[in-house]
Amino acid sequence: MIRIDPSNVAGFNNRTDFCVGTGRMGLALRKEYIDQLRLVQEYIGFDHIRGHGLFTDDMAIYQDQVDFFDKSKKYLEYNFTYLDLVMDNYLDLGIRPFIELGFMPGKLASGDQTVFYWKGNVTPPKSYDKWCDLVKATLRHLIDRYGRDEVVTWPVEVWNEPNLTVFWKDADMQEYFKLFDRTFEAVKEVDPEFKVGGPAVCGGSDELWISSFMDHVEEKGLDIDFVTRHHYTTEPPRFEGHYGYPPLSEAEDGFKNLHTTRDIIDSHERYRGLPIHITEYNTSYIPNAPVHDTTRNAAYIAQQLSRLGDDNESYSYWTFGDVFEEHGVPFTPFHGGFGLVADGCIPKPTFWTFVFYKQIKGMTCVHKDDDCIVMKDDKGGYHGICWNYTRWGEGKEKTSSFSIPVDNGRYCIVRNTVDENNANPLKIWHDLGEPSSLSKEEKRIILAGAKPGITTESVTVTEKEMELKIVNGPESVVKFDIYPAALTADRGYDYDRVIRGEEPDPEETAKK
Amino acid sequence: MIRIDPSNVAGFNNRTDFCVGTGRMGLALRKEYIDQLRLVQEYIGFDHIRGHGLFTDDMAIYQDQVDFFDKSKKYLEYNFTYLDLVMDNYLDLGIRPFIELGFMPGKLASGDQTVFYWKGNVTPPKSYDKWCDLVKATLRHLIDRYGRDEVVTWPVEVWNEPNLTVFWKDADMQEYFKLFDRTFEAVKEVDPEFKVGGPAVCGGSDELWISSFMDHVEEKGLDIDFVTRHHYTTEPPRFEGHYGYPPLSEAEDGFKNLHTTRDIIDSHERYRGLPIHITEYNTSYIPNAPVHDTTRNAAYIAQQLSRLGDDNESYSYWTFGDVFEEHGVPFTPFHGGFGLVADGCIPKPTFWTFVFYKQIKGMTCVHKDDDCIVMKDDKGGYHGICWNYTRWGEGKEKTSSFSIPVDNGRYCIVRNTVDENNANPLKIWHDLGEPSSLSKEEKRIILAGAKPGITTESVTVTEKEMELKIVNGPESVVKFDIYPAALTADRGYDYDRVIRGEEPDPEETAKK
Amino acid sequence: MIRIDPSNVAGFNNRTDFCVGTGRMGLALRKEYIDQLRLVQEYIGFDHIRGHGLFTDDMAIYQDQVDFFDKSKKYLEYNFTYLDLVMDNYLDLGIRPFIELGFMPGKLASGDQTVFYWKGNVTPPKSYDKWCDLVKATLRHLIDRYGRDEVVTWPVEVWNEPNLTVFWKDADMQEYFKLFDRTFEAVKEVDPEFKVGGPAVCGGSDELWISSFMDHVEEKGLDIDFVTRHHYTTEPPRFEGHYGYPPLSEAEDGFKNLHTTRDIIDSHERYRGLPIHITEYNTSYIPNAPVHDTTRNAAYIAQQLSRLGDDNESYSYWTFGDVFEEHGVPFTPFHGGFGLVADGCIPKPTFWTFVFYKQIKGMTCVHKDDDCIVMKDDKGGYHGICWNYTRWGEGKEKTSSFSIPVDNGRYCIVRNTVDENNANPLKIWHDLGEPSSLSKEEKRIILAGAKPGITTESVTVTEKEMELKIVNGPESVVKFDIYPAALTADRGYDYDRVIRGEEPDPEETAKK
Amino acid sequence: MIRIDPSNVAGFNNRTDFCVGTGRMGLALRKEYIDQLRLVQEYIGFDHIRGHGLFTDDMAIYQDQVDFFDKSKKYLEYNFTYLDLVMDNYLDLGIRPFIELGFMPGKLASGDQTVFYWKGNVTPPKSYDKWCDLVKATLRHLIDRYGRDEVVTWPVEVWNEPNLTVFWKDADMQEYFKLFDRTFEAVKEVDPEFKVGGPAVCGGSDELWISSFMDHVEEKGLDIDFVTRHHYTTEPPRFEGHYGYPPLSEAEDGFKNLHTTRDIIDSHERYRGLPIHITEYNTSYIPNAPVHDTTRNAAYIAQQLSRLGDDNESYSYWTFGDVFEEHGVPFTPFHGGFGLVADGCIPKPTFWTFVFYKQIKGMTCVHKDDDCIVMKDDKGGYHGICWNYTRWGEGKEKTSSFSIPVDNGRYCIVRNTVDENNANPLKIWHDLGEPSSLSKEEKRIILAGAKPGITTESVTVTEKEMELKIVNGPESVVKFDIYPAALTADRGYDYDRVIRGEEPDPEETAKK
Repeated sequence: MIRIDPSNVAGFNNRTDFCVGTGRMGLALRKEYIDQLRLVQEYIGFDHIRGHGLFTDDMAIYQDQVDFFDKSKKYLEYNFTYLDLVMDNYLDLGIRPFIELGFMPGKLASGDQTVFYWKGNVTPPKSYDKWCDLVKATLRHLIDRYGRDEVVTWPVEVWNEPNLTVFWKDADMQEYFKLFDRTFEAVKEVDPEFKVGGPAVCGGSDELWISSFMDHVEEKGLDIDFVTRHHYTTEPPRFEGHYGYPPLSEAEDGFKNLHTTRDIIDSHERYRGLPIHITEYNTSYIPNAPVHDTTRNAAYIAQQLSRLGDDNESYSYWTFGDVFEEHGVPFTPFHGGFGLVADGCIPKPTFWTFVFYKQIKGMTCVHKDDDCIVMKDDKGGYHGICWNYTRWGEGKEKTSSFSIPVDNGRYCIVRNTVDENNANPLKIWHDLGEPSSLSKEEKRIILAGAKPGITTESVTVTEKEMELKIVNGPESVVKFDIYPAALTADRGYDYDRVIRGEEPDPEETAKK
Repeated sequence: MIRIDPSNVAGFNNRTDFCVGTGRMGLALRKEYIDQLRLVQEYIGFDHIRGHGLFTDDMAIYQDQVDFFDKSKKYLEYNFTYLDLVMDNYLDLGIRPFIELGFMPGKLASGDQTVFYWKGNVTPPKSYDKWCDLVKATLRHLIDRYGRDEVVTWPVEVWNEPNLTVFWKDADMQEYFKLFDRTFEAVKEVDPEFKVGGPAVCGGSDELWISSFMDHVEEKGLDIDFVTRHHYTTEPPRFEGHYGYPPLSEAEDGFKNLHTTRDIIDSHERYRGLPIHITEYNTSYIPNAPVHDTTRNAAYIAQQLSRLGDDNESYSYWTFGDVFEEHGVPFTPFHGGFGLVADGCIPKPTFWTFVFYKQIKGMTCVHKDDDCIVMKDDKGGYHGICWNYTRWGEGKEKTSSFSIPVDNGRYCIVRNTVDENNANPLKIWHDLGEPSSLSKEEKRIILAGAKPGITTESVTVTEKEMELKIVNGPESVVKFDIYPAALTADRGYDYDRVIRGEEPDPEETAKK
Repeated sequence: MIRIDPSNVAGFNNRTDFCVGTGRMGLALRKEYIDQLRLVQEYIGFDHIRGHGLFTDDMAIYQDQVDFFDKSKKYLEYNFTYLDLVMDNYLDLGIRPFIELGFMPGKLASGDQTVFYWKGNVTPPKSYDKWCDLVKATLRHLIDRYGRDEVVTWPVEVWNEPNLTVFWKDADMQEYFKLFDRTFEAVKEVDPEFKVGGPAVCGGSDELWISSFMDHVEEKGLDIDFVTRHHYTTEPPRFEGHYGYPPLSEAEDGFKNLHTTRDIIDSHERYRGLPIHITEYNTSYIPNAPVHDTTRNAAYIAQQLSRLGDDNESYSYWTFGDVFEEHGVPFTPFHGGFGLVADGCIPKPTFWTFVFYKQIKGMTCVHKDDDCIVMKDDKGGYHGICWNYTRWGEGKEKTSSFSIPVDNGRYCIVRNTVDENNANPLKIWHDLGEPSSLSKEEKRIILAGAKPGITTESVTVTEKEMELKIVNGPESVVKFDIYPAALTADRGYDYDRVIRGEEPDPEETAKK
Repeated sequence: MIRIDPSNVAGFNNRTDFCVGTGRMGLALRKEYIDQLRLVQEYIGFDHIRGHGLFTDDMAIYQDQVDFFDKSKKYLEYNFTYLDLVMDNYLDLGIRPFIELGFMPGKLASGDQTVFYWKGNVTPPKSYDKWCDLVKATLRHLIDRYGRDEVVTWPVEVWNEPNLTVFWKDADMQEYFKLFDRTFEAVKEVDPEFKVGGPAVCGGSDELWISSFMDHVEEKGLDIDFVTRHHYTTEPPRFEGHYGYPPLSEAEDGFKNLHTTRDIIDSHERYRGLPIHITEYNTSYIPNAPVHDTTRNAAYIAQQLSRLGDDNESYSYWTFGDVFEEHGVPFTPFHGGFGLVADGCIPKPTFWTFVFYKQIKGMTCVHKDDDCIVMKDDKGGYHGICWNYTRWGEGKEKTSSFSIPVDNGRYCIVRNTVDENNANPLKIWHDLGEPSSLSKEEKRIILAGAKPGITTESVTVTEKEMELKIVNGPESVVKFDIYPAALTADRGYDYDRVIRGEEPDPEETAKK
């Protein structure tokens, strides 16, 4: 029995909606992408969005080319046609970029190493001056178009995971520092109000990079504005056909690892307390891990969301939707993509975990443990999220009991459930035979089932204490809401009578 | 155990979507009315809509007035401004009027008796010539605006329930026959293709009116096109405050009563087989009977829909929505209105009964009894609707077992449930305290819960026989769908493995 | 030649968008009403909306009735169902009520005198206590639903035009003062932050009422928050059939009259500078004056909008749309209604006058005279509105010449024209034969023509002075915009060459 | 003076809306593409859409790859994920594909020659069997998803412009015939109801290809269903920077050239009268020819549309919109793209030419010459399109005079004008400085001006003859519509009095 003490405020920094990840920027031109983002914004409403590929060739910004017709002439021009389209779309949906500067335009690259199906070039610039010109021109264009006061609030991160050879040639640390220094200087030259950070390393055993990065910027005397890193919580996947199956890690190991980053930074007097942004996190780091589509993922992430704010300013789920092409074009709607939303605008179980956390934003945390979090609102109500997951194998039902001190009176308890049979489109799709192309009828059925089960209950408290049991099935998330709900029956309305029905009039019956 | 024999076609005339009832025509100018109708059309899609008040003063068609400024002058004019608005809205939503000619414009009325909060005048015209002019001018205007071929398909009914003194002064039968004869003649004068009928009597013990009406038209030699009557299935309500509580009737009594109408008509050689349109039906005939909002109503109507086509060409549920003012303006969203949809565009349980019947349209009926109906589609699937209701008191759970001959293979069974905890916004609203004004959050919760519970199940048939159990909770409707669903797993996708999760690598674990 | 001196700031208080009038509140339930308001809000965006009928019976708030079923019982209840719908719609469209408390619910009225087709009761309450209860209950309900901080910003006006016998029984001044005092007290009791005012008199020779009202409140020591009056600018109409033809007044007479109100108030030391809200204005005060639909009206109102802020805090055009039933239901879409928008969501000429004034909001006025107003923006551009009207007869073309000091460089001049052949749907409708019911094709043609003519011109300034000629046809409004527009031609783009076209290659030609 | 004789039916085959061209299929995933297509469908409503790139790698259909994880395994799979998205979008917008089979998937190609920025592979298949498998699998997938009866109505064309070396390696005719034969056979194997044709050659001096193709299919005994070719009407462009400036050809030369194709086909007895589809036409054949954005283009195409049906079953304007990447990403919204619509959903002048031709569909042609076409409707009205263009240089105003026999009575004449100052967004954009990124205000201004000027006029005919003058400015299109428009003035409405205004009452005036 968990006894809630409303005066006992628990530590909880709810930054669920600060930022979300996305497939490469060029995909933001797609209709399905925008449709999925619209759904996410309607239900969750993230403030920022971060992804790769701002400078990748499909965005067509960097135009260093011979004249199309007169091959003797060469021109360096910037083309912001697609950038404008993408940014207009973002801002229309109430979301702002968390700018990641990368990857390298082909014509500016020093090599031809690329990453992903969509061939992002990951080599250093052949000219750092031209790179800086590109960065400055892009930021200035954004300022011209969207206004200085708006644009300088968009955080700027330099590159992505340079500690991996697939993302940065040879994972050359000194070369990255050079890139960082020059870029930092270029951005601040455009406007010193810009917030700039790095090194955007992948998580795990990367203390070396963080630590070296902090030493470097301290030595250079750079007043960086934040530090970024990533956070994935699985072991390497096992592969089969188009898919990868990664074992989930122990969550506590991840939290510990995150804390080391905090410690490293704080060990530098100059940077103590500097914000850390986790610019990517999820369970698996591959875009074809079916675990992403499961209720297990929803439950695992529910715990993450209760803890990630402990040491970090923000954390950005990788990614909002499944329009994502790193490993090519998926064959089916449920292919283990990172997204909160599957193709066809179908919300996955984890989508609802985010909705639940968004709904408790601004409330006061009165309890938090490894299985649940409980918040108090300012109208006499309580709201909690309970999760139940196993890393593998068959989970068991779990019951949480709460004792909550409340005023006497009538209350309505609402339960929203995400489990095997609720908000679980993956199961419905599987039962339908795992069709690669959804017919309209299949899509209708899946969408109808892709919503949490909702039940309500009326409870009257007479002893200033509400006892509440929350039952979590295996691999599930349950949100509960307790609302004061005094009965205000209209004159003549008697619900019990309505439900009971009326016995026929014996005389009427007799007449027959 | 019900053994389905696909070759055994059962009698079932599915006219669920032919027509639906509505509050008075003037209300069709309202935004909430149109929003509710749009929802209904999206999910159900009725062909026709019928209601009162075409000629009532708020439609402002009949303008017999002194000049506003020069009181010495008097003019008779027709004003079709509002009629056009209403009809444009209807046609935009893909629905056509089933025209009811009534009630009497105040300036054309012979008396001042009115019915309802909105004061429909129910007295005969003071001039039958002017009445006929009005009818003809209105139909001609419609033909001008919407085209002759379109408009002549709109059925025309003369007046409403003239056998009740509240709807027709003194329930004067001879006066009604006069009205009918003159009107019939007027309509056919505009275009003989118009289909015209009556007498639109309320149901119950009204054999006299039907019978007299048939004698009358036969004597007059009128080739009427159809006969209309109503069909309500409760005893008189017991009243309390703003509400009425009517006992539900025995359904079988109603079906018998309907059959007498068929018999009466068929007893006239000239009219044998003449179509009967039930231009109104529902459980209760009052707009403030809370039973309308219940799952009991949904289950009761499920049975009605399986039988009403037996003797009738069509049957029009009274009404599609709760924008309806006969007894004044409701105080709360759940006030026992007739509608399939409550105010706030909230679908009531009975809404889903209609959705289910619409979904099986065009399929072949292979079984029908007092508890269920089963259809066969042309792709190897089956679809059934099972209901379970009591007229009063606490119902019990009921299980139906089916044995269905199918090809061997994998199937997906989908169950859609309407019961106490599914698609039952009334209960949620009650649990929330029966608020008269819904806050945005209350509305969100109610809407989230106003949908059928949906579950899927995968079944593999090896003996050419599927055994299916459908469990109906008390006062419930369950739709089941059986789809062939061969598993077409993508390369490398293994659902069981996805659900089971991966055990961590012992080496990885050991490393820690 | 008007020489603009940018440093010479002219007096102009642009409150164009503070408030707009509306047909009775019950009409806000209509779809067409909401559609028209949506159009108005999209293009103009008013902050507040004011109209009659909050307490009129069709809003159904005051329910003092015998039980529907048990006639021996009587109940006084408030029904806010429709009020909520209306307010929800308003707030969704970004507009807030300017609350007018009136008219009298039938059951609370001391007499049966009514005004308008829709029968607003204009007699004093039979119980002032019950009236105050009604006012307080209504405001408290709004506060419950929409929040205190929001609702107290909604201004509250007591009754409408009590100085006319049609709007207030016998135009009894002392009775109005009683109503005002009691109501003022009641509103302040709910929350002293509410801003309350009166006496909402019609304009013209009503110095007596304003003056007496100020004496009265001073004597009573009431700290009223503002004074309200109306302002129409025609002589009495001449009537013919459904229509009235009023001569337009000399505008200057109206401005003088308005100033007397300012003087009367300022003559009371206690109330010096107290805000005046003109809660209604237009040319004619009848809803069937065809002048409302003309470009003459657009030009006349253009002048009004340049001056009405001189003495007044705000001014509310009567009305935003033509869903309005004071004299019954209009027979045609162009019937001389008050609206900026005609039925069918067709913007009238005056609509664009408002759009033009809205577009110059926030800019600095550098010139204002009887024919035009010129504003300066903060990006080096200028924007002006020029009007040309006659009160009657055939107007003449008029040319305004401006000399504007600007930086050297290239500019784009945009002209938007409302005149006989532009933005004049009335003429198109007339040419089409004045159809009472618009077919889809007729509506398409009228809508296509219901937009200002727009032309652009490129001008290069080399002597720091731009000379600009604006030609106004008879009864017209022209908006001009001057934007700096340096040519930023893309590489290889040559507009003159594009327009000129290419001569064919002689060799090609020869080959043939 | 052109004297119209209504009984004199002129030859005119209006297939304006049968088909329209599009950028490569992969672009149909874009939001802006769909937005532009929606606009086009709303105003024009094409039946079919044809473009390149169905099998190009970005559509990701042909997946012949080693396993992503286990490099020792290789799989050939088809991925229809994107194809479904594109086709769903098309069908939702009421448009169907005119299927062009091409280009070659990289993994199926025999070489690496590509065309365009988006690198369409233009080499023959390395295995014709695999090519045929791909074609059959794709068509069968479409049939599965959209139904056989639907899909077999989609015409199938084999490849694009194989007579050019850029589109087909070496423009190898025999290799194309091989491709055609195998493909033809494959398609017919899926369903013999499919209509299949070729050779899709570019126009001009290509009699050889058409002629050889006909000989070939005749020799092979193939019952092809139609012949396809293209039709562009400029000389080679002159280049400058990002743009090309082509001289317009003499239209008559083009029509003659088209007729030779008809003659060649008809010279084969077996194929006499076989339908010819012009699967591409426009003025210039480069996507950066500014002429496309001009009113000159609109006028030139107006003539084309009056004649192209003379010899051809259909003609498909290349293209509906400017989302098109053949030469890379455009730098500005007006870059001379092929589209009827510019980026930002701005209709270009030629858009309206199509709207005008669509509006006269189904009417009877009573006059056609080099400058205009006149149609008669079945309600007593006439509708004409008049154009005026020069191939280069400064055009002159042109006046067309018509004498049209009509019944006596009142008529409304509507003129819609596309010329320098109407429906000419290019000029507005130029005047605004040719901005590469449109601000919201610039876009608003351009959109406001991107519509035809519309004027109406009322004419009363008393001598059974209407004389009509249509004035065309240089490089313009004018549509006129003549509607019977009897005046049906409402009681008391007097338009002349409305316009004249009322003189003030001398007494009123005197009172002052």
